[in-house]
Amino acid sequence: MEQKLARLKAILGEVADLNHVAALLGWDQQTYMPPGGAEARGYHLATISRLAHEKFTSDEVGVLLEDLKKETRGLAPDSDEARLVKIAARDHEKSIRVPPEFVAEFAQATTKAHEAWVEARRNSDFAAFRPHLEKILELQKRYISFFPPADHPYDTLLDNFEPGMKTAEVKEIFDTLRPKQVELLQAITSSAQVDDSFLHQAFPEKEQWDFGVDVITKFGYDWTRGRQDKTAHPFTTSFSINDVRITTRFMEEFLPSALFGTMHEAGHGMYEQGVSQAYERTPLADGASLAVHESQSRMWENLVGRSIPFWEHFYPGLQERFPAQLGNVDLQTFYKGINKVEPSLIRVEADEATYNMHIMLRLELEIDMVEGNLEIKDLPEAWNAKMEEYLGVLPPNDAQGVLQDIHWSGGMMGYFSTYALGNLISVQLWEKIGQAIPDLPEQIRQGKFDALLGWLRENIHQYGRKYEPQELVQKVTGSKITPEPYLRYLQSKYNDIYGL
Amino acid sequence: MEQKLARLKAILGEVADLNHVAALLGWDQQTYMPPGGAEARGYHLATISRLAHEKFTSDEVGVLLEDLKKETRGLAPDSDEARLVKIAARDHEKSIRVPPEFVAEFAQATTKAHEAWVEARRNSDFAAFRPHLEKILELQKRYISFFPPADHPYDTLLDNFEPGMKTAEVKEIFDTLRPKQVELLQAITSSAQVDDSFLHQAFPEKEQWDFGVDVITKFGYDWTRGRQDKTAHPFTTSFSINDVRITTRFMEEFLPSALFGTMHEAGHGMYEQGVSQAYERTPLADGASLAVHESQSRMWENLVGRSIPFWEHFYPGLQERFPAQLGNVDLQTFYKGINKVEPSLIRVEADEATYNMHIMLRLELEIDMVEGNLEIKDLPEAWNAKMEEYLGVLPPNDAQGVLQDIHWSGGMMGYFSTYALGNLISVQLWEKIGQAIPDLPEQIRQGKFDALLGWLRENIHQYGRKYEPQELVQKVTGSKITPEPYLRYLQSKYNDIYGL
Repeated sequence: MEQKLARLKAILGEVADLNHVAALLGWDQQTYMPPGGAEARGYHLATISRLAHEKFTSDEVGVLLEDLKKETRGLAPDSDEARLVKIAARDHEKSIRVPPEFVAEFAQATTKAHEAWVEARRNSDFAAFRPHLEKILELQKRYISFFPPADHPYDTLLDNFEPGMKTAEVKEIFDTLRPKQVELLQAITSSAQVDDSFLHQAFPEKEQWDFGVDVITKFGYDWTRGRQDKTAHPFTTSFSINDVRITTRFMEEFLPSALFGTMHEAGHGMYEQGVSQAYERTPLADGASLAVHESQSRMWENLVGRSIPFWEHFYPGLQERFPAQLGNVDLQTFYKGINKVEPSLIRVEADEATYNMHIMLRLELEIDMVEGNLEIKDLPEAWNAKMEEYLGVLPPNDAQGVLQDIHWSGGMMGYFSTYALGNLISVQLWEKIGQAIPDLPEQIRQGKFDALLGWLRENIHQYGRKYEPQELVQKVTGSKITPEPYLRYLQSKYNDIYGL
Repeated sequence: MEQKLARLKAILGEVADLNHVAALLGWDQQTYMPPGGAEARGYHLATISRLAHEKFTSDEVGVLLEDLKKETRGLAPDSDEARLVKIAARDHEKSIRVPPEFVAEFAQATTKAHEAWVEARRNSDFAAFRPHLEKILELQKRYISFFPPADHPYDTLLDNFEPGMKTAEVKEIFDTLRPKQVELLQAITSSAQVDDSFLHQAFPEKEQWDFGVDVITKFGYDWTRGRQDKTAHPFTTSFSINDVRITTRFMEEFLPSALFGTMHEAGHGMYEQGVSQAYERTPLADGASLAVHESQSRMWENLVGRSIPFWEHFYPGLQERFPAQLGNVDLQTFYKGINKVEPSLIRVEADEATYNMHIMLRLELEIDMVEGNLEIKDLPEAWNAKMEEYLGVLPPNDAQGVLQDIHWSGGMMGYFSTYALGNLISVQLWEKIGQAIPDLPEQIRQGKFDALLGWLRENIHQYGRKYEPQELVQKVTGSKITPEPYLRYLQSKYNDIYGL
């Protein structure tokens, strides 16, 4: 067994190298690559991805995994070795179920769909995107058909982002969440609105950059094992546990964009920096799921970054950097401004109280599409109806409606709910942390985050991908993913801000 | 044949992808990688290099090349297809002659030797580097033994950098060059020295950067297919004909370093940007040799960048950027300052009149080592003796002597002479260009470089690696590499500057 494990790890190490190299190719493409490099970059990525796929789906890996699944039965089921074999076997089975011709067809279709989507969104022309989305839905259904029947066909898609999670579980969570969030939103929109006009001024980029760096340095983002660059769309990527990079986008006329974006990506980044060094070059060196990943980014962005204790520490420094813009804005006004709730059309600009509504809408539409109950031609209408129902706003055009997100054009169905689940997990963890570190608000008020980061490292980060998301949340909080803590958090926060 | 060629090109395309990816890994390592990423980067590079090697040395490639060598006999020997097969076959034969175990041993030894060299140079402690250099010399001899006996054992090493070039040819060229350069140097050092103190002042980096960008933009460096970044050691690298990047190092207290370094690297960069697009993803997409590559960088750096017409155009702009430093320095004084000749200890800081002497010294020592006529223990003494003989200066320690260059620690023997050969080729081409574009000095005086770049593209760049260096120089200038033009150039230039 030792020998087979060593051989498996050697191959998985090379697969990890190739995947990390592909990630670097992507990072460079979005940060520094000159436009002329685009065509060649396509070839680089195709070659590296194909080699990674070939290496991972080889017969040798298949045989090793079959043998090791049996031979590791004697090990503790929670041992790193047993988990490594289990996760590698799951990934391997998924990879070999999907025929290479399908992978190629999918890549081609999504490349074309992405280009069509960019154009369609620019011209608010859903008809131009429609055939591409129809093709993608057809491919998603075909993808599902490669797998054994699940409780719900959508499970197969969801599992790629939330391993082990079922559609029924997500539905149940959202069914509890939806009416409460709608109710809360109605209460907020019936109250007097807060002012955030001071956030819409000219904030020089360099000062924004420097302030963001100060903040995430105090958080504990490790610059010897990471860096920050500018991109059109912010993201976190890693080429090793010890080389985890974040990117940020700056808007000179709206302070919150880069400010909270930087904290958000640093949250992702610290997660990946915190994975056990023993997992380097293994499939365990990643987040447990997209939702768990999102719980980390949202915790630093919202639970820390949009809180009163945080700004009691940081606001004087922010005012010093922007005296003309914020010198006359007091802390309470600023705090309310950055927490303003306003039903709006665009998901990525949504506040904490409305964000999940955007997600629920998308999940419901995706499930309807996969079930065959919603045709693509009827999608814009369905979208708009739900926007009115949940948020009380109606998109004036499809660019600000059904065409706003990049995900479907890239063939990513099953992805959206992870954003909302991440919000829920973040508060479940936060309640637990509050018990473990009773003076956390006071620590934050003093700009101290080491106990918080230490807790996250110990309870979440170090495990990487070892546990499935529900398993990890259960292990840490004593319960599976549940909406109550998040609802308590929203209620309490907006009671204060809107005097509900 | 068509089918086999297509299959060969497909494999070579993937090999090119892998090599370009490895180049990007190296570029990132030297520009932006955080220190924590170093260990993983070693794995990335090892995996990619191994895959490239495996793919290129596969039996399939061997059989394809054997067949195609025969089947392309009917093609014109200068056709791209015939040349592609010839060059790929040469590379392939070299690759399969060297056993993988040797490659691994060599990589390990040079990694250790490089670390030891960094330390040894820091402490000026040759004894600490000696065993590593002994090992490397032993490996070089073993490497030579894998190949059929050549006219001279050193030929095998030289051929890796100057395909087809013989040690005897280089020796003959240098034997003509040496006495003439020594004589010229004596005449210069007997004359009154010029002043360059104004170059040693504080020159803010941003202004240096912007001026350098202005210059190479006018040269014709294509920013849509390239970029510039800062590194500790300047270099040019490419991931495609359409993604060729240069780097520059800035010294705030010495203007020429970045100024001429930027022009030098842009010269390399424009060469690679100018290769025929038909050669993308083939082994032809590279320079003909290191010497031909160096002829391009040295041409833009020295023949253009250190000339009077160039500064007649650019000097007013430079003075505007640095009024306090250069406002009172007239053009002639500036021109003489940047062309000051002074025998010195360090190759990379050497002027045009002494640079080749540093190279000849190294070539002679390398040949003696390979022939077995010089033991490593006696190397410092031999180095110092030649420094005194050729340049009249004696290194006060080994750090400024035999330990100054990185090359040997990386196992690169056979490399140095390409620097001097590049100087010679640059002037051979320059004389030819002078005939083709009689008003070139006037064009340069007006800041126009398109005719010059156009000539280089047409006569050198487009061919990439299609021709061997001697073949290319012969084709373009009507003669093989010869020292006379360079000697004429030096004589005429320094007659003016030093009133010889």
